[in-house]
Amino acid sequence: MTNKLSTQPYKGVRDFYPDDMAVQQYIFDVWSQTAESFGYARYDASVLEPADMYKAKGAENEEMINEQTYTFTDRGDREVTLRPEMTPTVARMVAQKAKELSFPIRWYSIPNLFRYERAQKGRLREHWQLNCDIFGTDDYTADIEVIALANQIFLNFGADPSMYEIRVNDRTLMTRLYHALGITDEDTITAITRLNDRRDKIEKKEYLKALNTITGDDRLTDEVIMMLDKSDEQTDLVVGLSELGINNVVFDKSLARGFDYYTGTIFEFKDTAPGNNRSLLGGGRYDNLTSLFSDTPVPGIGFGFGDVTMRDFLETHDLLTANITSPIIMVLPMSTEHNLLAQKVAQTFRTAGIGVAVDMSTRKVGKKLKIAEEQLAEYAIIVGDDEVTNETYVLKSLTETSEVSGTLEQLLNKLIA
Amino acid sequence: MTNKLSTQPYKGVRDFYPDDMAVQQYIFDVWSQTAESFGYARYDASVLEPADMYKAKGAENEEMINEQTYTFTDRGDREVTLRPEMTPTVARMVAQKAKELSFPIRWYSIPNLFRYERAQKGRLREHWQLNCDIFGTDDYTADIEVIALANQIFLNFGADPSMYEIRVNDRTLMTRLYHALGITDEDTITAITRLNDRRDKIEKKEYLKALNTITGDDRLTDEVIMMLDKSDEQTDLVVGLSELGINNVVFDKSLARGFDYYTGTIFEFKDTAPGNNRSLLGGGRYDNLTSLFSDTPVPGIGFGFGDVTMRDFLETHDLLTANITSPIIMVLPMSTEHNLLAQKVAQTFRTAGIGVAVDMSTRKVGKKLKIAEEQLAEYAIIVGDDEVTNETYVLKSLTETSEVSGTLEQLLNKLIA
Repeated sequence: MTNKLSTQPYKGVRDFYPDDMAVQQYIFDVWSQTAESFGYARYDASVLEPADMYKAKGAENEEMINEQTYTFTDRGDREVTLRPEMTPTVARMVAQKAKELSFPIRWYSIPNLFRYERAQKGRLREHWQLNCDIFGTDDYTADIEVIALANQIFLNFGADPSMYEIRVNDRTLMTRLYHALGITDEDTITAITRLNDRRDKIEKKEYLKALNTITGDDRLTDEVIMMLDKSDEQTDLVVGLSELGINNVVFDKSLARGFDYYTGTIFEFKDTAPGNNRSLLGGGRYDNLTSLFSDTPVPGIGFGFGDVTMRDFLETHDLLTANITSPIIMVLPMSTEHNLLAQKVAQTFRTAGIGVAVDMSTRKVGKKLKIAEEQLAEYAIIVGDDEVTNETYVLKSLTETSEVSGTLEQLLNKLIA
Repeated sequence: MTNKLSTQPYKGVRDFYPDDMAVQQYIFDVWSQTAESFGYARYDASVLEPADMYKAKGAENEEMINEQTYTFTDRGDREVTLRPEMTPTVARMVAQKAKELSFPIRWYSIPNLFRYERAQKGRLREHWQLNCDIFGTDDYTADIEVIALANQIFLNFGADPSMYEIRVNDRTLMTRLYHALGITDEDTITAITRLNDRRDKIEKKEYLKALNTITGDDRLTDEVIMMLDKSDEQTDLVVGLSELGINNVVFDKSLARGFDYYTGTIFEFKDTAPGNNRSLLGGGRYDNLTSLFSDTPVPGIGFGFGDVTMRDFLETHDLLTANITSPIIMVLPMSTEHNLLAQKVAQTFRTAGIGVAVDMSTRKVGKKLKIAEEQLAEYAIIVGDDEVTNETYVLKSLTETSEVSGTLEQLLNKLIA
C-alpha cells in the first residue's frame, strides 16, 4: 500500500455533498427569487481583489487586514486578497459605471467570502452571503424597502414573525440625543457606539465600568444608560414598516452594528428562539459608498445575510424542506446486455426535460429496484427482451403501489400531462 | 481631491454587471437543468484545497503547480491552492464516502477555477466550469451517456448539430493499433500521444519532424501517419451514439486530450464555425479516479465545459437569448411625498412574487416613466393623491399602448391570472 492523501477538506471550509448542496441551492433560490420580486438585479465579481482596497479603510480595518484576511503576493508581485466582504467590491463596480447608471439602482449578489480565523469549533474560514443594496437615494423609504426585503425572505421560507425580531436604530438620531446630554465630542460618541456593539457579549458590570471610563462622570453614565434603555421611538421608519404590515420591530438605542461607515439607519434581525438567540443579519445606511474610488458621493442602504446563519435559523425553527434532486425515473436494465436499450428508453424522457437515470451496474434487477427506492426516485421502468420486443413498457410508481403500461410515447404523454 | 483607488478589477478576472450576470445565470441554469434531466446531482466544495493534492499527480503536473497555480502559505503554515481543476476535489470527496455510496453515482458541479497565466489578451486567470461525471461503472454505455449529456446541452441552448462536431477516440484501441505497428514501448506511445495533443497548434513540417524523432524510422513514421488518418472506426461508442440519434460524431485517431489519467474513451466537442474553430469541451474515461486517496479503484467518465467557451459559442452562433431580469412593474410616485404610499402599492405585488420596484428619486414622473421604459419594465403604476383617494390605480403597459384600471386587488388578479 502506497501513502495516501487525506480525504479531509482544507481546514475551516466545507464540502457540499448532494444532500447539503440541495439545502444550499434551496437557500440561494429563495434568496434570489425574493430579491428579484423587489426588483433587485444580480451581479457578481471575482473573489480576488487588490489588497489595497481593504487597507484603505483606516485604522479599524488594519487588524482585520493584517490578521484576518487571506492576502498573498502573486507571481507578478501584486498583493491580492480573497475578499472578506462584498461592500468594497460593489463600491468599486458602482464607482466605475456611476455616470451610466440611472439611480436608484437595486443590486444583489451571493458572493463567497473568506476570513482567516483561528481554528475554533464551528468557526468557518469561508461562507456565502446574500448582499442586497439600493444605491443612489437617501430617501427614508429606501430604508423601509430593504428591511421589508429582508423580512420577506423570512416569510418566504415559511417563518412566522414571532420567530425573529427586527431591531432598528439611527446614527443621526443618536448623535442628536448625545448632543442633548452634552456629549458633543465625536471620538466619545464613537467610543460609546463601539462599546454598545459589544454590550451583549460582556458582563453588565464590565460594560458600566467601560462606559464610566468613557464619559468620565457617574451622573452622565446614568443618563446615557437611561437614554439607551428608553426604546419607544415611533420614527418614520418604524411607522412606515408598520404601514407595510411589518410589526415585529423594536427601536433599540443600544444597537450599534460595528462598521464605522454606517451613517443613518442601522438594523439587525435577531432570532427569538432561546437556543439560537443571536443576530441573523445586519445592515445600514451609508452616505457615500464610493468614497475610496470617486469624489461623487453615492448614498445607499443594504444588508448582508450569511448562509450558515440562514441554515441555523431554518433548522432551529424546523423550516428546512429542501429535498435532494432525485431522478424522477430510474431505468433498470434486466442485464448489462440491455444497457444500451435502457439508454435509448432514458433518452426519450430526458430530451423532454424529465429527470431520468440508468442503473447500468451488474446488480440483479430486484436489487436495482431497491436502490431506486432508497434514492427516492418516483418511478422505475424495467428494460428486458419482452419490453423491447413488444415495445410495451411498465411505468412503476415507487411511492404508491400502482403501475401503468404502454409504449414509451404513451408513458411520456402520461408524465407530461 | 484625495488619492482615489482604481476601479479596475484584479488582473485577469471579470466583473459581472447585471447584463453580464444575466448571461452567466442563463448559462448556469441550462447547464443545471440538463444535468438534472440526466439524473446528475449537484455538489460543491471550497475553492481552497491543500496544495499537496496537486503536487501528487506527478511530473507532468510539476510545472502546472509551480508556475500556473495560485499557491500560498496560510497563517497556520499550511500550503493552500486555489483549485485549478475540479477532478482532484471530486476524487477526494468520492474517496471519503466511497463505502456509503451506491455506485454508479452521477454528480455535477459548476466550480470557480483559478490558473495563474501570464497576462495575455483574453487569457483569464479564473473561470467557471461545468463538471459532469459518472463514477463507479466501466460499462461503455456510461461513455455514451456523458457524451449524450454534453450533446443535449448544445441542443437545449438551441444549437443545431451542424454547428459542432463530436470527436472521439479510445486510448485502449490506440494502444492495440500501436502494438500492431510494433510500437510497444509505453514511453514512446505516450510521447506520440502528447505530440498529437499539439498537432493542431504546430506546422505540419514540425509535427512530422517530431514524430520522426520519436519513432526513429521514416517508414514507421509513414505508417503512424496513415493509421492516424484512417478514421472510419465504427466502435460500439459511435454506433451507440447513433442509436440515440447523435450522428455528428467523428472517430479521430489523432485526438489525444492532454491528461495522462485518461485510460479509455476520450472525446471533445469542436466548433465548426470558421471563426471559432476550436475545442469547446473535453473529457474521457479514467480507470481509477481516487488512487491518490484510496486503494479501492473507482472508474468513471466525465467532462468539463468552461463558461467563457460556452458564451463564445453562443455568441458565434447567435444563440444568446438571455435577458437581464427586469422588474415587471415600476411604481412611480408623483412626488417624493408619495414614496411611502408607493412602497405600500409595491408590497401588494411583490408579496405575491411579482417583481416590482419603486422609483423614489426626485425626478419628475414623466422622466421616471421614460427610465422605466429604458429599463425594460413591462408595466408602470403611477401613485398620486387621486389614486390613493379613489383607491383606483392604472396598470400601464410599457410594451403596448394599453392600460387597465382598478383596485390593487383587481390589478393583481389580472396579473396572476
